[in-house]
Amino acid sequence: MIIGFDGDDTLWHSEREFAETQAELRSLLSRWVDDEETNARLLATERRNLALFGYGVKAFTLSMIETAIEVSGGEISATEIHHLVGLGKALLHHPVELLDGVREVVEQLSAVTDLVLVTKGDLLHQETKVAASGISERFAHVEIVNEKDPATYRRILERHRIDPADFVMVGNSVRSDVLPVLDIGGRAVHVPYEITWEIETVASAGLADFPTIATVEELPSLLAGWGLELSR
Amino acid sequence: MIIGFDGDDTLWHSEREFAETQAELRSLLSRWVDDEETNARLLATERRNLALFGYGVKAFTLSMIETAIEVSGGEISATEIHHLVGLGKALLHHPVELLDGVREVVEQLSAVTDLVLVTKGDLLHQETKVAASGISERFAHVEIVNEKDPATYRRILERHRIDPADFVMVGNSVRSDVLPVLDIGGRAVHVPYEITWEIETVASAGLADFPTIATVEELPSLLAGWGLELSR
Repeated sequence: MIIGFDGDDTLWHSEREFAETQAELRSLLSRWVDDEETNARLLATERRNLALFGYGVKAFTLSMIETAIEVSGGEISATEIHHLVGLGKALLHHPVELLDGVREVVEQLSAVTDLVLVTKGDLLHQETKVAASGISERFAHVEIVNEKDPATYRRILERHRIDPADFVMVGNSVRSDVLPVLDIGGRAVHVPYEITWEIETVASAGLADFPTIATVEELPSLLAGWGLELSR
Repeated sequence: MIIGFDGDDTLWHSEREFAETQAELRSLLSRWVDDEETNARLLATERRNLALFGYGVKAFTLSMIETAIEVSGGEISATEIHHLVGLGKALLHHPVELLDGVREVVEQLSAVTDLVLVTKGDLLHQETKVAASGISERFAHVEIVNEKDPATYRRILERHRIDPADFVMVGNSVRSDVLPVLDIGGRAVHVPYEITWEIETVASAGLADFPTIATVEELPSLLAGWGLELSR
């Protein structure tokens, strides 16, 4: 059994930092619109830009800038826009903070099988976070991708000669970490994070069959139930 | 012999589109500073942001925005900043135009050996350009990286079990395509582009030993001189 891990909001905190930044955007735009409107307009901008910008902090920063200009009818000042660029830079500079239990579980599992990190977003920022995580040595492979769809997972597994039936993906996003892996014949474990970015939500996982655990600390015993030998 | 190709300004045009965009920035900022000053300030901003933003259009767009705000002392309008975001989007939307002779040379070489595309920049934008190039099927592997240093090339060659002594890299940047490959024991061919981005310039290639050709059309006969069998 080879185990794949998502990065953002599975191994380390990410979305709560975006949420704090978005709160600053709401505050900045409160002269023109209320909080709900700012959230809705930012989300619409992000959705519109996704196919062109992809994921990550630089895309988010550009979408914040566009939203601020549009919502303010062009009244927002250059100095305030500069502040938004600074918020983006602060996100890129933010230290990597592992979720509770991650270090121990990753150490335990890497001692008995190969782990693969599959993460999406800005190439440089993800590489920087992996390097700063302190656990990068525990992963046999690190794959930074633009989109986590079935084709992407198939390509990664082929590259490393991993049989999908032998692969288990662990992550906080049903849309990106669970459904595409089930789709190609693998298994997946859902570990919800405290916040889910709207774009990662799915209307319903339908009849898809996957377990959900409250924290990553429950992972080893679940995988043991699937046949993983926890000591060797 | 396995042949690596750079993408931007080696297979397809890129820098001339950035140069056209930068001309629009100079025009926008001409109310405050002259062309030379805009170029110098933008370059300084890009250098300062490189370690945080990495390469690519989104990084360039954010650096243009910062430069415009700083150069204008905060006087530039939100509408003008919105125009800069639009220039960045236009760069991302720009169609891929192969350099003269690329299609034919890539077809000829891919018929006799494995080709590897090694390109850097925004993950999504590079994937999009590779897909739109019409020649992606000619490459055995496509590697999109954040930085083209010796460690990166070493990792790519190890992943694909390529002996550096058997690898030849072809590209327009002495800094990114030539020197790091020579450093790890490979060979490299320099094909200069009509414009070199200031950040890619190197003071001197020193005593490094590599050939420079005027266009990619000279590549097959050069490689034949290095022992590549051009027909099989």
